[in-house]
Amino acid sequence: MMKTNLLAWIQEGNITIPTILFSEYRNLNLNEYELVLLLNILTFLEKGHEFPTPDELSARMTISISECNDMLRRLIQRGFIEITDECTNEGIRYEKYSVIPLWERLVEHFLKNNKNTKETDKQEDET
Amino acid sequence: MMKTNLLAWIQEGNITIPTILFSEYRNLNLNEYELVLLLNILTFLEKGHEFPTPDELSARMTISISECNDMLRRLIQRGFIEITDECTNEGIRYEKYSVIPLWERLVEHFLKNNKNTKETDKQEDET
Amino acid sequence: MMKTNLLAWIQEGNITIPTILFSEYRNLNLNEYELVLLLNILTFLEKGHEFPTPDELSARMTISISECNDMLRRLIQRGFIEITDECTNEGIRYEKYSVIPLWERLVEHFLKNNKNTKETDKQEDET
Amino acid sequence: MMKTNLLAWIQEGNITIPTILFSEYRNLNLNEYELVLLLNILTFLEKGHEFPTPDELSARMTISISECNDMLRRLIQRGFIEITDECTNEGIRYEKYSVIPLWERLVEHFLKNNKNTKETDKQEDET
Repeated sequence: MMKTNLLAWIQEGNITIPTILFSEYRNLNLNEYELVLLLNILTFLEKGHEFPTPDELSARMTISISECNDMLRRLIQRGFIEITDECTNEGIRYEKYSVIPLWERLVEHFLKNNKNTKETDKQEDET
Repeated sequence: MMKTNLLAWIQEGNITIPTILFSEYRNLNLNEYELVLLLNILTFLEKGHEFPTPDELSARMTISISECNDMLRRLIQRGFIEITDECTNEGIRYEKYSVIPLWERLVEHFLKNNKNTKETDKQEDET
Repeated sequence: MMKTNLLAWIQEGNITIPTILFSEYRNLNLNEYELVLLLNILTFLEKGHEFPTPDELSARMTISISECNDMLRRLIQRGFIEITDECTNEGIRYEKYSVIPLWERLVEHFLKNNKNTKETDKQEDET
Repeated sequence: MMKTNLLAWIQEGNITIPTILFSEYRNLNLNEYELVLLLNILTFLEKGHEFPTPDELSARMTISISECNDMLRRLIQRGFIEITDECTNEGIRYEKYSVIPLWERLVEHFLKNNKNTKETDKQEDET
């Protein structure tokens, strides 16, 4: 019984997220609802469910389906997620979310920050 | 230069979170602000900063210091985090956050859910 | 250029492993070759490649294809991995590795250890 | 009881490793023993134990203390780990392992590979 529960827990699995997403989401102009929506999309993707619906996403959150729908649309417009067309080996077409745009934004921000830090260090060294 | 940036990224590190925290936080009566506050505390703990201040936490979020303070107090009252007294090898006392209460709540919820699922399965098997 | 490299790094991804696999593999009678073979299978599974061949696995390791083949067979016989038959939505059958037996063994070992620790604690409390 | 066991499991924790360490360790001229030794050092570091002894490391592995000692020395000589001198806030000096050299080697290898891939792609595009 204990073994079954522990195995069930293990199979639920973990999700691994770069810590700077938590320290920088605000600087990317994301609010807490948008961050959690992105984390939920990531969780679905991780589990192999590549195109969760607004119903499935809002069911886990404190927002309504229509609010979720609006939020998804704005996240696409603002370049944090995108919907890509894919094709199975058997030639069946399907859509999936991609969070690569989110990582691009985070990386751009990180590189800019890193550069500024270095320049500040350099100036301090020189004085 | 690229190497330096990549190494800096790696050293920022990752945080690993059980996926069911994302599917179940709403059922634990947590909202998105409280979830993200907990995730930020986890991130600080992971980096060895064991008692982040409301200033440090709210600086990453879209909430004010006093809202952050209130939220921390309520999370303690409602049994999601606790402050524990610790002591270094050199006998210096300090305080730290513990998120064990959060994992307890999540585990309780998981075990209850798992039991219900099994009973439903059993009933379906019997019909 | 830097951005491209960092994104490529992120997309290579991470794998998350319970730390007790590293502290306990020896007690499960696994050697270092077998542990690394299991970790490589996990890595392939994580990336969605569910049935890596002995060629693909041995190419990453310091063992030959035939040694890899033998090791896989013994890991199946000894109950650390299994091959399961799966079926796509389109009705196409395929085989995949499952590492659930490994987690079962690790969990059994963990529960036994945990029980012993508690009993030792109890005896010490009583004295 | 179940809750206690699950909490104990969660607190044992996970370790997150870049997948390319598994696909590339052989190309870094590491063998399986050395890889597992490095993974064990990482696990100790993650848990806040910054300078595990050859006794502690070999106790988890199938190698003897003196073999472990030799392996550690060679990993330092070959630039995969280093020992750094640290100082607590209270002015007490201590030693710790750093695995930054390992990440440097992995990143160098990754950047070289990535460049080659791109040049191959480019040549193929041009033909």
